[in-house]
Amino acid sequence: MTTGKINVSVENIFPLIKKFLYSDHEIFLRELVSNATDATLKLKHLTSIGEAKIDYGNPIIEVKIDKEGKKLHLIDQGLGMTAEEVEKYINQVAFSGAEEFLEKYKDSAKDSGIIGHFGLGFYSAFMVAEKVEIITKSFKDEPAAHWTCDGSPEFTLEPHDKTDRGTEIILHIAEDSLEFLEEYRIRELLTKYNKFMPVPIKFGTRKEKIEQKKGESVAEEDKDNIFTEVEVDNIINNPNPAWTKQPVDLTDEDYKNFYRELYPMQFEEPLFNIHLNVDYPFNLTGILYFPKMSADLQLQKDKIQLYQNQVYVTDNVEGIVPEFLGMLKGVIDSPDIPLNVSRSYLQADGNVKKISNYITRKVADKLKSLFNENREDFEQKWNDIKIVLEYGMLSEPKFYEKAGDFVLYPTVDNKYYTLAELKEAIATNQTDKNGKLVVLYTSNKEGQHSYIEIAKEKGYEVVLLDSPIVSHLIQKLESDNENLTFVRVDSDHIDKLIQKEDTQISKLSEEESTQLKTVLEEIVPKANYSVQLEPMESGAAPFIITQPEFMRRMKEMSQTGGGGMFGMGNFPEMYNLVVNTNSNLATTILNTPDKSAQESLVKQALDLAKISQGLLKGEELTAFVKRSFELIK
Amino acid sequence: MTTGKINVSVENIFPLIKKFLYSDHEIFLRELVSNATDATLKLKHLTSIGEAKIDYGNPIIEVKIDKEGKKLHLIDQGLGMTAEEVEKYINQVAFSGAEEFLEKYKDSAKDSGIIGHFGLGFYSAFMVAEKVEIITKSFKDEPAAHWTCDGSPEFTLEPHDKTDRGTEIILHIAEDSLEFLEEYRIRELLTKYNKFMPVPIKFGTRKEKIEQKKGESVAEEDKDNIFTEVEVDNIINNPNPAWTKQPVDLTDEDYKNFYRELYPMQFEEPLFNIHLNVDYPFNLTGILYFPKMSADLQLQKDKIQLYQNQVYVTDNVEGIVPEFLGMLKGVIDSPDIPLNVSRSYLQADGNVKKISNYITRKVADKLKSLFNENREDFEQKWNDIKIVLEYGMLSEPKFYEKAGDFVLYPTVDNKYYTLAELKEAIATNQTDKNGKLVVLYTSNKEGQHSYIEIAKEKGYEVVLLDSPIVSHLIQKLESDNENLTFVRVDSDHIDKLIQKEDTQISKLSEEESTQLKTVLEEIVPKANYSVQLEPMESGAAPFIITQPEFMRRMKEMSQTGGGGMFGMGNFPEMYNLVVNTNSNLATTILNTPDKSAQESLVKQALDLAKISQGLLKGEELTAFVKRSFELIK
Repeated sequence: MTTGKINVSVENIFPLIKKFLYSDHEIFLRELVSNATDATLKLKHLTSIGEAKIDYGNPIIEVKIDKEGKKLHLIDQGLGMTAEEVEKYINQVAFSGAEEFLEKYKDSAKDSGIIGHFGLGFYSAFMVAEKVEIITKSFKDEPAAHWTCDGSPEFTLEPHDKTDRGTEIILHIAEDSLEFLEEYRIRELLTKYNKFMPVPIKFGTRKEKIEQKKGESVAEEDKDNIFTEVEVDNIINNPNPAWTKQPVDLTDEDYKNFYRELYPMQFEEPLFNIHLNVDYPFNLTGILYFPKMSADLQLQKDKIQLYQNQVYVTDNVEGIVPEFLGMLKGVIDSPDIPLNVSRSYLQADGNVKKISNYITRKVADKLKSLFNENREDFEQKWNDIKIVLEYGMLSEPKFYEKAGDFVLYPTVDNKYYTLAELKEAIATNQTDKNGKLVVLYTSNKEGQHSYIEIAKEKGYEVVLLDSPIVSHLIQKLESDNENLTFVRVDSDHIDKLIQKEDTQISKLSEEESTQLKTVLEEIVPKANYSVQLEPMESGAAPFIITQPEFMRRMKEMSQTGGGGMFGMGNFPEMYNLVVNTNSNLATTILNTPDKSAQESLVKQALDLAKISQGLLKGEELTAFVKRSFELIK
Repeated sequence: MTTGKINVSVENIFPLIKKFLYSDHEIFLRELVSNATDATLKLKHLTSIGEAKIDYGNPIIEVKIDKEGKKLHLIDQGLGMTAEEVEKYINQVAFSGAEEFLEKYKDSAKDSGIIGHFGLGFYSAFMVAEKVEIITKSFKDEPAAHWTCDGSPEFTLEPHDKTDRGTEIILHIAEDSLEFLEEYRIRELLTKYNKFMPVPIKFGTRKEKIEQKKGESVAEEDKDNIFTEVEVDNIINNPNPAWTKQPVDLTDEDYKNFYRELYPMQFEEPLFNIHLNVDYPFNLTGILYFPKMSADLQLQKDKIQLYQNQVYVTDNVEGIVPEFLGMLKGVIDSPDIPLNVSRSYLQADGNVKKISNYITRKVADKLKSLFNENREDFEQKWNDIKIVLEYGMLSEPKFYEKAGDFVLYPTVDNKYYTLAELKEAIATNQTDKNGKLVVLYTSNKEGQHSYIEIAKEKGYEVVLLDSPIVSHLIQKLESDNENLTFVRVDSDHIDKLIQKEDTQISKLSEEESTQLKTVLEEIVPKANYSVQLEPMESGAAPFIITQPEFMRRMKEMSQTGGGGMFGMGNFPEMYNLVVNTNSNLATTILNTPDKSAQESLVKQALDLAKISQGLLKGEELTAFVKRSFELIK
């Protein structure tokens, strides 16, 4: 038996880095800026604990393009490296400088915002550069070093005359990566990944007008001359974004301003925000915003952004943020979310599950407090947030449990009830003879107007539930609330919607009823309508079309995915034609001896009932309108 | 100046592999099965060229779970390795065996289906295993070798008594990866990644009934006894999927069967397929299917699958398949598509651009030949494919160029014209007085029925264009076809839709017209309707509501994203109320002295015109129906 050490063949490591390190080459800039930030914050920390006896000052990071020389420069004023440190941190691939640093200064380094893993990230430079130089001067009293490597494992290391503290990285951009010499591209990347990093990043300069003679009074005609243009550093980032601050230090306006900073192209203001801030059992900060939902949810391009210690990671927060909150906007910043892992791993990871639950709880708590503190305002926002909340009730049991405290059921008359309040409000008038509490609802205030009016005449409350997932939601509410049932206003005629003890007496004899039914069934198409004679008040509409709740709801559930019954989405629509035997029209039909006149009468009445339900269309509608114009000409 | 070699610290490579090699740990199984396939096909190749003088036989790959021992076994019957080769291929990470092999047998190896890069893929085993063993016996006359490594760089290598040719890999699954000892999980992965790999893969066994006494005649009562159950290997893959065959060797039924194989949960049959097959300037095979589009495009979960030499890679083909074909299904297999690269890189890559153009061209060619070979059948499928084709015309200039040959414009009477045919058919009757050819269209056959009928009475053709992106498409067609204009049937009254020289004479005097207009404008709400008096045929509808084409189209374009004018989507709807001064109703209104009766008349007429356009809703509709029931009771 032989034993040995696996030999990693260095000649092949560089192509591997290029291929595997990150699938997105643009990541190199994020990595290098992270390293520079890291070096700067480390120096700050050493200064604060007295290990570095230097003037920390106001260090910045500078990014410069040298298009002619095909070079990209990154210059920091951080702790720099001695030749010995270059040897140690750069020449030993995969040696993590940050880890060793953290180990050494474990306690004092906490919360000092040290990020990244020095070493490996640096090598991502070779994804875009054919040659990389490092010129670096340590804060320690040692000469500067100049390291050069062309991507082969050979490097050179020599002294350099740099005197100011810090590190300059020079990338000689490769032919296939020339895009990274374009100003717009670098600006785009810095804005995407580094917009909120904690050290100021300079990229170019810009002109700014400053007042020339401060404090002096100026004659009106001189006003134009008191400003002078100067070149100032163009700082691309905001090193202190709102989410890193304490909620007590932020005003409503601050939150709104940060929203505009995050989404400059977003014109609508957010409805409200939720500040996340937890450090046990995991570390997470962030601000979530409830936006005004636009009609087309597909067009929502601004998503929640995930950061790690102020470095942008991704806008794919699947698994971390509960699905129903996917429509929210804002940022989440947490060092405790594992990156580069599969979705199934994320779902199984305990920390991630805890984060997701924490976010759900925080959102529910915020909604509850908004509801309690200013109910009127909350009611006004209801229409814009209901789809998120209703979807949350269906998909997150923990959210469903808390939803009773703030989820609203608005009536068509703009009263907003919680479920408990609604039950109380309708208990007397809308309990049927079997003791069931019946909630009447409409999915379309306009389209079901005549049915709503009839219900209102009876003193019933009609709740407006018009989200696409409502059929699933009421199915769930019914199964969790004994003796509660939801019925759409057009699912039966008014006396049957909520069945009471009292019965109406029919003006027609049994024989007359049979005769009327025969007449109607000969004229009304059987395939779609089932004729139903009902004795109702004489003033009620003579013909009404209804669609039974159960079948319709199952059909809707099956169409919106999940639930319902398999294949039911394709069933034909079935309606009842309810004819009021106590109406004058019923008598008139019976007493019209002429067959053809009788048929005209029934057809016109059926057309009117169909118009009420939005069912008269195409050729039938054209004929109806033509006939009706004839009547009035 | 010092020079030196960058030292890759081996102790840190294993954590790196775990973290960076693949973001999805499950990939290890695909890599190991690929290696096994590779080893088998290499042996086949060596046998075929006479370098290996052995009996190739019918080798398979076996995957076995040892749940108790927490081990996963992968056994192949390929060429195996000698101890020396293990030293070379396994102990030298990132040394690519396949590359060296291909270099040596460059010419003869072409098309022998050798896949993968031996070496690196193997190390993905350490993503899920705490210890890995290799037991391998080369096809050469040398003893077997047994290699063991626990993830530290130390390994052991010793002889083994294995006598049958091939390699067995044993993974001692780590505690955080126990999911990979579950049968359902391994089956899932084999089905996902290896379903079409070229060597049979055995996973467990299954019972099969075989006929006992072959050829003998059997009495009816013995029929049950002539079958006996035997255990047979359960082969999980189809080593010869349809796309690897030549189109001439495949029947329509074969293509349909392969579709069912790809999407076992898909019940609808595809409309037609396109077999892709090219080997210069890039290598690509595949079969694309046009499915029947389901109403809800969001629910399309079965996507085009991307393979490399029969190994599944991804179902994200963004950038490779033109966006408008994203709704298609099927497979694409190409070794020439770079993996693990950013989207912006993919878009810039010349080969990928060529592939995307090739697919566009092939789809266009296929559509053209389907159209030419069986136009009737093509017309029947039109409704199911039009959305894809119309979107393609808008998004791919190359597709737009070819679309004239097969894109259809169906009329409401189910005639299907190409654009050229349509132009010819309407040239005589639908050229207006300025020489413009006017295409009348409807977006809703039912909803615009009365307008369609009027146009048909004039002998006009009405084209049905009801896709959501139609406004963009006709905008483009107009700008590319001089003197062609599209007008929706309800955008003006019939005499103005296509303006001819002949003018109608009004029955009303100028004074009467002014009087009528004053009366109407007092009653008709100004905010939404602009009153317009027109002398038309006396039989035409007395009141018509129209909506000018330009504004409506701009509004639609702005609502469906892109084009139109900024913010126009939120403009209020504006209509014209066209009143026919030659209608009897116009005279009746003028001659009704009673103000209140006049108002009733106008309102009823306006309601009827609104009903024709689907504009009478809610309270107004309820009142209309109630009034109309009163009229007939």
